[in-house]
Amino acid sequence: MSKDRVVATYYVETPFSLQRAAEVIAGEQSTGTFTAVPGETEEVKDRHAARIELVEELDEAGAPALPGAAVPPGHDGRFRRGRIKVSFPLLNFGPSIPNLLSAIAGNLYELQELSGLRLVDLELPDAFAARYPGPKFGVEGTRRLTNVYGRPILGTIVKPSVGLSPKELAGLVTRLAEAGIDFIKDDELNADPPYAPFEEKVEAVIEAVERAADAAGRKIMYAFNITGDYDELRRRHDLVVEKGGTCVMVSIMSVGYAGLAALNTYSEVPIHGHRNQWGMLTRCPLLGMEFTVFQKLCRLAGADHLHVNGLNSKFYESNDSVVRSIQACAAPLFGGYGTMPVVSSAQWAGTAPATYEAINSVDVMHLAGGGMLAHPDGPAAGFTSMKLGWEAAVSGIPLTEYAEQHEVLKRAIEKFGRG
Amino acid sequence: MSKDRVVATYYVETPFSLQRAAEVIAGEQSTGTFTAVPGETEEVKDRHAARIELVEELDEAGAPALPGAAVPPGHDGRFRRGRIKVSFPLLNFGPSIPNLLSAIAGNLYELQELSGLRLVDLELPDAFAARYPGPKFGVEGTRRLTNVYGRPILGTIVKPSVGLSPKELAGLVTRLAEAGIDFIKDDELNADPPYAPFEEKVEAVIEAVERAADAAGRKIMYAFNITGDYDELRRRHDLVVEKGGTCVMVSIMSVGYAGLAALNTYSEVPIHGHRNQWGMLTRCPLLGMEFTVFQKLCRLAGADHLHVNGLNSKFYESNDSVVRSIQACAAPLFGGYGTMPVVSSAQWAGTAPATYEAINSVDVMHLAGGGMLAHPDGPAAGFTSMKLGWEAAVSGIPLTEYAEQHEVLKRAIEKFGRG
Repeated sequence: MSKDRVVATYYVETPFSLQRAAEVIAGEQSTGTFTAVPGETEEVKDRHAARIELVEELDEAGAPALPGAAVPPGHDGRFRRGRIKVSFPLLNFGPSIPNLLSAIAGNLYELQELSGLRLVDLELPDAFAARYPGPKFGVEGTRRLTNVYGRPILGTIVKPSVGLSPKELAGLVTRLAEAGIDFIKDDELNADPPYAPFEEKVEAVIEAVERAADAAGRKIMYAFNITGDYDELRRRHDLVVEKGGTCVMVSIMSVGYAGLAALNTYSEVPIHGHRNQWGMLTRCPLLGMEFTVFQKLCRLAGADHLHVNGLNSKFYESNDSVVRSIQACAAPLFGGYGTMPVVSSAQWAGTAPATYEAINSVDVMHLAGGGMLAHPDGPAAGFTSMKLGWEAAVSGIPLTEYAEQHEVLKRAIEKFGRG
Repeated sequence: MSKDRVVATYYVETPFSLQRAAEVIAGEQSTGTFTAVPGETEEVKDRHAARIELVEELDEAGAPALPGAAVPPGHDGRFRRGRIKVSFPLLNFGPSIPNLLSAIAGNLYELQELSGLRLVDLELPDAFAARYPGPKFGVEGTRRLTNVYGRPILGTIVKPSVGLSPKELAGLVTRLAEAGIDFIKDDELNADPPYAPFEEKVEAVIEAVERAADAAGRKIMYAFNITGDYDELRRRHDLVVEKGGTCVMVSIMSVGYAGLAALNTYSEVPIHGHRNQWGMLTRCPLLGMEFTVFQKLCRLAGADHLHVNGLNSKFYESNDSVVRSIQACAAPLFGGYGTMPVVSSAQWAGTAPATYEAINSVDVMHLAGGGMLAHPDGPAAGFTSMKLGWEAAVSGIPLTEYAEQHEVLKRAIEKFGRG
């Protein structure tokens, strides 16, 4: 990895040649504008120009993926697709995520010379690690705080997503804590609503958590959704810590990488990174960015946990893509920056085996909302069924076989199993 | 406009019926999950459920716009498109931009039931205005600070975008100020790079600005790009104000609406809002959001100026879309919240008439980088040519006719005119 250059990899579609597209990208995002200007000397270009590192033609399309591309005279009707690597001198922006984004993304998505652009990978020099310390807890810190080892951290999302009063919520937390569950998170829809103000919620939930901990000898981790404006992030974080809470959650797209990085400068508990709104940046295959890039930026900015969807989820994402996301989170960044991938969405005991098979690791959070709370025998049975699902997976025993000895698992399969 | 509900309008594509798609959207983003859970009572639904306000079928497609949609059994191969309005109780999240986003966007873009989703409009109750004061300067404040009335504020972007030392930059600013220009902005690629540290840049530029002001009796407005992490925004803003600067610029997508809103809590000069990276959210017609929504959020969060591209720009956006964007910025929000649209990208004197014709107003900033600095007779002539372009436009005189009496305009047409 270069010490002084950032390397961005793009998947590009263009009515021009890929070489031309690469030149436009490199020019737009470093020393060029649409016409030569005084001061754009050879010396400036030498020190500051972006450099094309790779142009790899892959395939082509008969129609543009995105609207508004300018077609050159005599165009043959083909839109070339390929991979392009462009490197930018770190000198141009320094190790700053906000300013990095203006360089590697910036106006590129709007260029007429492109009919598709997707940022698919990003290599950052060590200076970024020196500037952004990254997750303070990650997998180890989260295991230490929850005292869960040798299996995934199993948790749930408060449902219904909206509408519970602090008292109702505390009652639910108590029932879940008594069921032995490891982790509970607020829904992303629920942070500081007028009907359940944050302060009251924290007060009520933490009391429930502490009481249950006194009884069970193990303290549940509750991720309080502190998403809000900057001053609120700080105030809510501080309140959670002051009251004895052990986790805060933010909607990363709502506060930005800059908001996450700001939170990480003072956070004293793990940051649970929720990725809602992320689909906007990634679902069009020829626009936006890959999760590979997103997770690097999130980890750099300090996400201790990071949502990755789940296998067989209610979302559009393919299982292959989910597995790649989990693996991306597990790959070291700057030799560390470990984050705990959070597997979630339409999860239940039955998604454990495929998840384990895909990643061959138990270092994940596995969250089930309905799949745990709506177990026919209640939340405690839901939690147990999830543990049993993972036991079966790690032991290599088929789920249905394991269910023969375990009634709660069998009942989960009856309710949630799909064919 | 409802006092207690947020109304979001979506353009949707779905393999199901539009009604079904609307129900999934409303359920996912309020009280529902993929299976019924205890606590989701009728009372909770009554108070908190999102409501479908409109389902309007518009057209259909023979193939999905986005990948990953689940096709129902016996699907007829048609993907229905239409407009859907869903209203959300303000009670669910309160007047908070970050939490609003989790509700109106959230996980929606990832739903299997949709093969396309675009947020096209947003109506917010007054509670948002009470919470977010919006732009402090807008058009009037910016005119007051620049002392420019009756015509657009004409400015330029520092080019080359990267590479100028503070001393070189100050030299350029002096030449431009002597030419009588109103406004200069940093390029979005340039905030606090190692080769031109922010402090040194501010020092050098403001000295040049003040000296030129002493000579001319009128002070140029320089928008310093303060984009950075949270603490940097504050430090850089304060430095600009302390030294006597009159404008700061941020890349809104780099700092988030939350970052912009935070800056607006303490800013003492106009905030110049740059929208680089925005293409990522909008270029796919069936994903992301319309500028209509983006500009409302940016104005709410405090953008005094907001970039809108320009007519005949180097970007993919159609002229119609640019005109709609300018008009959107000019439309009152909560009875005010005025922002000054910033027309930019491949602009020169010749884009003035069409811009004026389209908006019938001079309340814009019109920026030309190369189109001003690369005028054959230098930046001063470039600036004069822009003023002449607007004079011609407002007087209803064809540009070429006006150029017969004005050599600098003629020279601009020769260099930048396209057919």
